[in-house]
Formats: sequence, C-alpha cells, structure tokens
Amino acid sequence: MKKSLGAKTILYPTPVLIVGTYDAAGRPNIMTAAWGGICCSSPPCVAVSLRKATYTYGNLVQQGGFTLSIPSDKYAVQADYCGIVSGKKADKFAETGLTPVRSTLVNAPYIEEVPLVLECKLVHQIELGLHTLFVGEVLDVKANEDVLDDKGVPDVEKLKPFFYAPEANAYYGTGNKLGDAFSIGKAVRKKGK
Amino acid sequence: MKKSLGAKTILYPTPVLIVGTYDAAGRPNIMTAAWGGICCSSPPCVAVSLRKATYTYGNLVQQGGFTLSIPSDKYAVQADYCGIVSGKKADKFAETGLTPVRSTLVNAPYIEEVPLVLECKLVHQIELGLHTLFVGEVLDVKANEDVLDDKGVPDVEKLKPFFYAPEANAYYGTGNKLGDAFSIGKAVRKKGK
Repeated sequence: MKKSLGAKTILYPTPVLIVGTYDAAGRPNIMTAAWGGICCSSPPCVAVSLRKATYTYGNLVQQGGFTLSIPSDKYAVQADYCGIVSGKKADKFAETGLTPVRSTLVNAPYIEEVPLVLECKLVHQIELGLHTLFVGEVLDVKANEDVLDDKGVPDVEKLKPFFYAPEANAYYGTGNKLGDAFSIGKAVRKKGK
Repeated sequence: MKKSLGAKTILYPTPVLIVGTYDAAGRPNIMTAAWGGICCSSPPCVAVSLRKATYTYGNLVQQGGFTLSIPSDKYAVQADYCGIVSGKKADKFAETGLTPVRSTLVNAPYIEEVPLVLECKLVHQIELGLHTLFVGEVLDVKANEDVLDDKGVPDVEKLKPFFYAPEANAYYGTGNKLGDAFSIGKAVRKKGK
C-alpha cells in the first residue's frame, strides 16, 4: 500500500545541466536546470525546460541555440550558484571564475573547465505551463580527454556526474557501478523454463 | 581543449523509468526508458520518449495515460530486463515476478514492489524522429512508506535510485550527498566584495 504524496515533480535522478547562452549584447550567461534530459536518439536531441522569467529563456529563443555543460561533482557549488542567481543581475562566468568558450557550431558559449558539453540547435519549443520545453538537436558532444576511457567513451567514474533530488532539495554524487545495461536483465528467466 | 565525440546522445545521469501501460486487451505491460525526466513544475509534468516500434508506444497512445515506476537499485536486474524484451512477446510482470496495481487515476498499471510511482495523463505528443516525446501531467505521486523521511518526503538514501549511463551502457547507484540545493552555491561571492 503506497502513500499519496500529491501531484508533484518528484523523479530521481534529475540531471544538473548548465545551460549556456548569449544575450542580445553578446554577453555569455549560464543557468543551471534540472528539468531536462535526452529525448531522441536520431537525430540526437535533448530537452531542457525553462521558465519564461529566466534570462536564459529570452537568450535561447533569440539565438536559436544553446549548450549544456555537464559538471563533475567538484563543480557542485558553482552549478548551484548558477541556479540561484539570475543573469539579469550577475555576470555568472566572472563570479564563478569559470571560462566561456564560444561554440563554433551554435551561437552559444560553453564552460571550458566542465568536462562534458553538448552543442545544441533549437528545434522545438512547447509551452507547458510555468515551463517551456525546448528541444535541441545535439550537433556535437565535446569532452575533456581526462574523462575518456581508452576507447574514447566518457568514463563515468572519471567524469563523476551528480544529480539533483527534487523535494529533498539536495545533490548526490555517482555511486558504485551496478552492472552493464542490456545485459544484467538476461538473468530474468521465463517461468517454467 | 576538448575532444569532439560527434553528434550523440551523451548526458549523465539519465533516469531509469519503468513505463506502465495496458494494451487493448487490458494486459499490463512495463518497459524501461531512460530518455525522460521532469519537464514542467506547474502543472507538474514529465517527459518520456519512446520509439514507435515499442509495444508501450501503441498502448500509451490508445489509453491516454501511463505510469512511471522509479526502481531502487535492488530492482536493477528487473529494470534492465524490461528494457531488453518487448511486451509483444513476453508477459514481463509474470517473468519478473513483479505485481501490477491498477491506477485509480489513469488507465495504466504501476509496480507494487517499486517504491516510487507517478500516475500520468498524456497531454502532449511530439514527433522528433526515431523517438516520440510524450508529456504526461502528473496526477499523483505515490511512495512506499519505508522510503519517506519523517516529513513525508522521499529520502534518497532510502530510495536508492540509480541511473543509466549512455555510451558506457552501464548502471550506477546513488553516491554520497554533496550538499543542499539552492544553498551551497551561496558560497560563490562577487569579485571585489
């Protein structure tokens, strides 16, 4: 018997996505969002939802592109800061000491220090209510070499991504590897076999 | 200097969402998806993307509702199985030994054993390519009492959610708490202050 918690935004894990955009004056801005994720394999697309009140909302609509920088756990403080303070009032690159890099694929900046970044072209915009869901086609993923394994694939244990827990309002790091996907489930056997 | 990995679906963490639906004959089915997340705070909405080829796709469109069951790490094997095998061929509830519970809010089943479930009414359907993005309004969240803290909020350390790592094709558990959200970022101070 389960207990009802009401109609709430509770789902774990939610990612920590630092959305990079330029404003009309060409100033780089970063904002942290947790309402987002992958939404299509081909073409590769990601979703990120923003409130209209955010500075990033206007920038993203105006520029038609954005980046997502995926921080390691050592950037948790800077990521949290970028979710508290508005780019209308603050130069968040200057205040965090992070370095903007201009994407050559979309008109948006990403964060040099953060190990994994996605460069995205805006392809859909869906009004849902308080949030607008933006779908971006991933034009490229870029990573720092020191988080790649010997096959050139991101190594989660080197990357150390972390997640946001809604309601609990806390961040948690990456735990132990539980097993290989599309593999461990093969242990489930048909009844009667 | 970052290395280009190409246009790929790489983003960490992605959630492990077990989508519950009924087929036209009223048979309960479950399928694991990692392309999804929260997408609006008000009304509370979640997104989940499915390929047209899946059994769940047709069920969801037909019934106009679905559930998301969020497994603890101890259900990693069953969750992985539900991402490997199609409901066209298998009774995944029977094979995993999991128990379907009929939602009273939407025409969809959720998993009794799994500690956290969301009951969702389909409100948007967006064709993106290989995947269709479905937006569901969350009508209720239900949890097993043993994963709630003394305020009635899910305790992540009891719930033990896990995540899927694309490209690496592996599951990772929940790690240590890094800090409180909307709090640890306050340590970033303005330059010159």
